[in-house]
Amino acid sequence: MTLLNEDRLFPAEVGTRAIARRLYAGIRALPIISPHGHTQAEGFARNQPFPDPVALFVQPDHYVFRMLYSQGITLEALEIGNKRIANPRKVWKIFAGHYHLFRGTPTRLWLDFAFQELFGFTERLSAATADHYYDVIEAKLVTAEFLPRALYERFGIEVLATTDSPLDSLAHHAAIRDSGWKGRIVPTFRPDGVVDPAFDGFAGGVRALGEMTREDTTTWGGYLKALAARRQFFKTLGATATDHGHPTAQTADLSEAEAGRLFAKVTAGKADKELQELFRAQMLTEMARMSLEDGLVMQIHPGSVRNHNAQVFARYGRDMGADIPRPTGYVEALRPLLNRFGNEPGLTLILFTLDETVYSRELAPLAGHYPCLRLGPPWWFNDSPEGMRRFREQATETAGFYNTVGFNDDTRAFLSIPARHDVARRMDAGFLARLVAEHRIDEYEAVELAQELTVGLVKRAYKL
Amino acid sequence: MTLLNEDRLFPAEVGTRAIARRLYAGIRALPIISPHGHTQAEGFARNQPFPDPVALFVQPDHYVFRMLYSQGITLEALEIGNKRIANPRKVWKIFAGHYHLFRGTPTRLWLDFAFQELFGFTERLSAATADHYYDVIEAKLVTAEFLPRALYERFGIEVLATTDSPLDSLAHHAAIRDSGWKGRIVPTFRPDGVVDPAFDGFAGGVRALGEMTREDTTTWGGYLKALAARRQFFKTLGATATDHGHPTAQTADLSEAEAGRLFAKVTAGKADKELQELFRAQMLTEMARMSLEDGLVMQIHPGSVRNHNAQVFARYGRDMGADIPRPTGYVEALRPLLNRFGNEPGLTLILFTLDETVYSRELAPLAGHYPCLRLGPPWWFNDSPEGMRRFREQATETAGFYNTVGFNDDTRAFLSIPARHDVARRMDAGFLARLVAEHRIDEYEAVELAQELTVGLVKRAYKL
Amino acid sequence: MTLLNEDRLFPAEVGTRAIARRLYAGIRALPIISPHGHTQAEGFARNQPFPDPVALFVQPDHYVFRMLYSQGITLEALEIGNKRIANPRKVWKIFAGHYHLFRGTPTRLWLDFAFQELFGFTERLSAATADHYYDVIEAKLVTAEFLPRALYERFGIEVLATTDSPLDSLAHHAAIRDSGWKGRIVPTFRPDGVVDPAFDGFAGGVRALGEMTREDTTTWGGYLKALAARRQFFKTLGATATDHGHPTAQTADLSEAEAGRLFAKVTAGKADKELQELFRAQMLTEMARMSLEDGLVMQIHPGSVRNHNAQVFARYGRDMGADIPRPTGYVEALRPLLNRFGNEPGLTLILFTLDETVYSRELAPLAGHYPCLRLGPPWWFNDSPEGMRRFREQATETAGFYNTVGFNDDTRAFLSIPARHDVARRMDAGFLARLVAEHRIDEYEAVELAQELTVGLVKRAYKL
Repeated sequence: MTLLNEDRLFPAEVGTRAIARRLYAGIRALPIISPHGHTQAEGFARNQPFPDPVALFVQPDHYVFRMLYSQGITLEALEIGNKRIANPRKVWKIFAGHYHLFRGTPTRLWLDFAFQELFGFTERLSAATADHYYDVIEAKLVTAEFLPRALYERFGIEVLATTDSPLDSLAHHAAIRDSGWKGRIVPTFRPDGVVDPAFDGFAGGVRALGEMTREDTTTWGGYLKALAARRQFFKTLGATATDHGHPTAQTADLSEAEAGRLFAKVTAGKADKELQELFRAQMLTEMARMSLEDGLVMQIHPGSVRNHNAQVFARYGRDMGADIPRPTGYVEALRPLLNRFGNEPGLTLILFTLDETVYSRELAPLAGHYPCLRLGPPWWFNDSPEGMRRFREQATETAGFYNTVGFNDDTRAFLSIPARHDVARRMDAGFLARLVAEHRIDEYEAVELAQELTVGLVKRAYKL
Repeated sequence: MTLLNEDRLFPAEVGTRAIARRLYAGIRALPIISPHGHTQAEGFARNQPFPDPVALFVQPDHYVFRMLYSQGITLEALEIGNKRIANPRKVWKIFAGHYHLFRGTPTRLWLDFAFQELFGFTERLSAATADHYYDVIEAKLVTAEFLPRALYERFGIEVLATTDSPLDSLAHHAAIRDSGWKGRIVPTFRPDGVVDPAFDGFAGGVRALGEMTREDTTTWGGYLKALAARRQFFKTLGATATDHGHPTAQTADLSEAEAGRLFAKVTAGKADKELQELFRAQMLTEMARMSLEDGLVMQIHPGSVRNHNAQVFARYGRDMGADIPRPTGYVEALRPLLNRFGNEPGLTLILFTLDETVYSRELAPLAGHYPCLRLGPPWWFNDSPEGMRRFREQATETAGFYNTVGFNDDTRAFLSIPARHDVARRMDAGFLARLVAEHRIDEYEAVELAQELTVGLVKRAYKL
Repeated sequence: MTLLNEDRLFPAEVGTRAIARRLYAGIRALPIISPHGHTQAEGFARNQPFPDPVALFVQPDHYVFRMLYSQGITLEALEIGNKRIANPRKVWKIFAGHYHLFRGTPTRLWLDFAFQELFGFTERLSAATADHYYDVIEAKLVTAEFLPRALYERFGIEVLATTDSPLDSLAHHAAIRDSGWKGRIVPTFRPDGVVDPAFDGFAGGVRALGEMTREDTTTWGGYLKALAARRQFFKTLGATATDHGHPTAQTADLSEAEAGRLFAKVTAGKADKELQELFRAQMLTEMARMSLEDGLVMQIHPGSVRNHNAQVFARYGRDMGADIPRPTGYVEALRPLLNRFGNEPGLTLILFTLDETVYSRELAPLAGHYPCLRLGPPWWFNDSPEGMRRFREQATETAGFYNTVGFNDDTRAFLSIPARHDVARRMDAGFLARLVAEHRIDEYEAVELAQELTVGLVKRAYKL
């Protein structure tokens, strides 16, 4: 018995499956390019063992605990938020006893991949196998081959991007560089905390930014210089991209004077919600301008209503599985930025969405026209087999394949990285196989496209 | 020749179809649990024969006559709205002569099921077979085996919920209970007419509610007590759920004082559209509060623009096939209610939608987090093979199967109940079969899930 | 080697494919009915050779050059906007060298069809084959069999509608009629330029309309009379339909006095955006009224944000591939018109959308009820294999097949017409084949439906 079938995720139709197998065989072993994610550089800097199965599989993974929570298991019982887990085996047993809840979800695919490929399990996780799983995982975690750097190499990762605040010293990135280890861990410049006035600690962040860069961030000009300086610094540690997690995709193109006045209001804490949105909007355009100057690729991840559950937020803080997508428009929202920079050949702007209705209606038409635009892969809840299929079906005919950028694992769960890339490679192989089986492209073209989607487009889009 | 193939609705791919057949075989004969619908208790109380083929198949079924109307057949010609049908055979012939219009629709599947399984027809309905159909149906309807209770038993129904106004005496439900018949027909508390100020007769309804319960419904407190009392009464006749058919999913959480003032305005007829919406919104939260107290499961069916066709409404009244869905948001709309009660383990709130764009964007993320939320099955226009497939494909990966509640037939067409459940079972078998064929779940898991989707989840969600 | 496989676009599953082949065989050779498109009557009037491969395949086709532009090729390099192409072979080589960008797009299917079926190519276009392609095409274009009328006949076109301004003299249409050629090229009345105050040259257009019809278009009554007169004139040259390309689907039903006052404001240039929208809305209802009088079928194509790219618009003008869809609502927008004319059996109103979310939520429910409404085929970006499949899957179950109107090629690329109809026929054959394979309809019904979708419904809907 195995947890994973060799043909998983391929279309069932025999002819199409045979093509998918061939296409997948050509990309299965390609290196992992991970240009966007949320693992921590610290892990690779320190290279210490992962503490225990719960700290590895349950605690950092909001996909896992949100599902358990939705079925009545308290976050308390899962020890979410505890710095140190008091009774990891007890939490593990709760998780194991509810593993059936994940049937049909990508989480199940990711976990089974790690369980089988890394730990060698052949029986499915359940209440009955919980202790066995726990014991085996616990024992392996302390071995040398399960240290972060060893896993990085075993996973065949070629480059892994983290996501970092401009206020981060990037000391861990520097430590990795200085360690002589050949792994390539690069930071990504994610300035939300110092460009979004609605962020907790925004004012303090802007001040800290000034101190860090010795720029006068009480002025609009100084603030922009400080951001540019931190972008430069990120580049010295390998950064090739920025990332922007705004509530909407709204952009603005104010005059310098208007922007300066807005900045003054915003930093004085006198901006209402509308002005805060306008400031975020203006900052996207400023970031695009800086990207044109320093060459950093720009990513926008808009459309999440953060911390929807007030009680959970009050008690546990951010990123507790209670972020919910909202309808997100791009056509009018991006217009100010695109009218200014949309035709610049030197700009790359990668768009993401949680609102699938925009794939065919907005994103593919936009990316199929503007030279600067590229489409990011299905994001978050849509980073799933069906979500990937819908993206390809809805975006490809108008944007083509070449305006997309391959896969992002976008994860804080390091052990799930190979599983996630494997799902993407299989789904792409299956989608391309269908195009071949329906004689919409030739197989030699599908072979080329599979390579592009796995490596070529990723490297070119992210300048890696 | 038959009207229905044994393999209907299963995926064509042979391997997948074989799995679907096995899964379906395990659930085909399970009892029908019908926790939400619009049949009338009176029929089971009186247990009288159905009058004629038109009164059975055409007149009560807005799916049928809206399609005929859309193709230029007048409602007059169909005798819609006539208390007694003057020339049922003539109407039947119009229907039969246009039966081709239903090709590709679920109505055709439901009708053919009844035609074959109940009446034994083997040739498709058409102008040529119209009289034969009419004669056979007419003759059977007067036999004992076609009385409502006999059909209930023959259909293998275990429980059937009706939908009833708080002002309904539930005399027919009581009569059924007192009759000693073992059928389980339970009411559902649907208070729209007395909580929605936009409803015709709202003020009179609130007054009547006071008289019925001997509470002073001119006060906010008395009004709430009266509603609670009627909920209690519904429970004595077997009710386990409430249902709310609002234009939107908007909820509110006003202070008692604010709510009281709003109630005064609303009952005085002084509320504009915005305040009417606010009152409905507040009432959803009040209903959730009462559900926590009395244990009734809460259902919200939002997003229908009622009576879109002014001429048809003026002449024929409500429910004439002219209700049209509108875009419906849940994320901000439900926030006030969820912020108050979303984490209560004792509450069950089942959400429905006519706007499929929210499956992956809003409903699955919400239900995959909040303990109180469950997703109702595809509703109304989406209660169809493709609609069911889209629901499973778009909701499962984020909400899982266990945050769904199985199938609702939601029908006023009693004879279509087994057909509708059969379609749902076949589509679920087909969807699960695909997951098995693509090695996303094991077949033993699919067997368990098929049982859950057919019976287990329904009974647990609706406390039946 | 061939560019096109005989089984292209059919489902891969063998049983379904066999059915699709049979269905397609029955419709493959049916005449092309093209009731809506953007070819020019002048071409058929003059019947001159097409100038060169670039003028034929690149310059007029915004699908082609928008994709090239999105990948960094300048419009300058493609000589877009040049009256006479200075170096067509150079442009052709750029196009050929980037032909891989079209993998997975409908453009690729359309082009390969023309390349193989008209020009006999067997090797795919690429940098390597660019010159060969150029030479062969160039040589064939000057032959008699490549003249517009010869191609019209070779394509098996039975009728071809153009789209024309009310200010157009229709001289070319008259010339065709007077030439004795048996081809049927009919105009379509598209009054956007004289009913949409936001149109460049609106005021002058209204004046010109008055001069043309000798009506006083400074008054509301005279303006309406002038429009009615031009509709009549269009009818004398074979027009059976009007078309309306508005930003939204908004309609209005003002009193005559209100409408008159609005007209005065609008023509005086004193209407803000909101009043301009109201005027367009009113004009749709006026057009519906005139359609009831003169029998012209009405089409609405709403929801495109025109000229999204300000720089491209400033330099190259309209229709440069920079039109982007926006979310488009129909339920409330159409209400004023439908409340007035929705139940008129004499009116046909064909609805299109660029917002696929409305197929199941709004358009199918509306068309499945209102006698005047029919659903146009997938439009523009959605006129693609996946787009067609989504339309059938999302609209059919509620609207049925008989509330749809078959296919529109909607193209200005004359040579792509047979390719586009072939894609539609294949996709319909495949969709119907699936319904047969899943035993949702019988094969004899699918045969009838395939004929209807290809010819019957088109002719009846457009009165051709």
